Amino acid sequence: MKFCISAAILLLVPALIIGQGPPCSIDASIRSIVSQYNRNMRFECRSVTDQSSYASCPSGYSVSSCSCGMGCGSWDIQGSNKCHCQCANMDWTSARCCRITS
Amino acid sequence: MKFCISAAILLLVPALIIGQGPPCSIDASIRSIVSQYNRNMRFECRSVTDQSSYASCPSGYSVSSCSCGMGCGSWDIQGSNKCHCQCANMDWTSARCCRITS
Amino acid sequence: MKFCISAAILLLVPALIIGQGPPCSIDASIRSIVSQYNRNMRFECRSVTDQSSYASCPSGYSVSSCSCGMGCGSWDIQGSNKCHCQCANMDWTSARCCRITS
Repeated sequence: MKFCISAAILLLVPALIIGQGPPCSIDASIRSIVSQYNRNMRFECRSVTDQSSYASCPSGYSVSSCSCGMGCGSWDIQGSNKCHCQCANMDWTSARCCRITS
Repeated sequence: MKFCISAAILLLVPALIIGQGPPCSIDASIRSIVSQYNRNMRFECRSVTDQSSYASCPSGYSVSSCSCGMGCGSWDIQGSNKCHCQCANMDWTSARCCRITS
Repeated sequence: MKFCISAAILLLVPALIIGQGPPCSIDASIRSIVSQYNRNMRFECRSVTDQSSYASCPSGYSVSSCSCGMGCGSWDIQGSNKCHCQCANMDWTSARCCRITS
């Protein structure tokens, strides 16, 4: 009888500890890892220039802006990754290409 | 006496296992989920054009750049989401609007 | 003998529970914390203007675009954080500076 009670307690204690959800140390561990990963995320840009009215960003990048030769400030973006400078006889077009990296 | 020692060991073993922080499998699980979520985060842009000197980004977006009609390259951003083209008699203004999505 | 079997069971049960990897409640907890952190991540921009042909972004920001005085739309980015307006006798240069915050 005495042994049965002891055995029940021994089974109950770990079951209670595990059953109450993630213990505090695990929760803190999750928060620490997540914020460490997110701190490593960066906004990263590069420029791609071509000797024409068009310049395209590499795969994985989005165009944040375009710059044009001959002082021209009129441009549009075709699809999500191609700059088009609208002034006539354009000598160069540059695309500013950005992405998130971690 | 013999039973008491056994009982102490039985209580101690799970306590030690639980007490030493998150076991390796949980840690790996956290890292896997976090990097999977972060891989899904993307930098996303769209253009909004209006037939005036101003163009505004929708809620949730920030202006990364502006483009203006008549070749004009002089613009400023009012607040965090409105492009203003500064040249006279502007026929169109375009805002490049970006955000992070997951 | 009877005691040895009981002891073996008592040791085995918690070991099995812990050994099978993170329980569901921990997994859900990880997902909840990660998506909460990622929801808080924002794409944030500010403008920096200088009375010259150059304007630089503060540390931690990347240039997403440049704007120039006198209607000029020809610019380039030197390094990752300095705008350079190319037209002659430039009176002002503005850099659009962006980053990710959480």
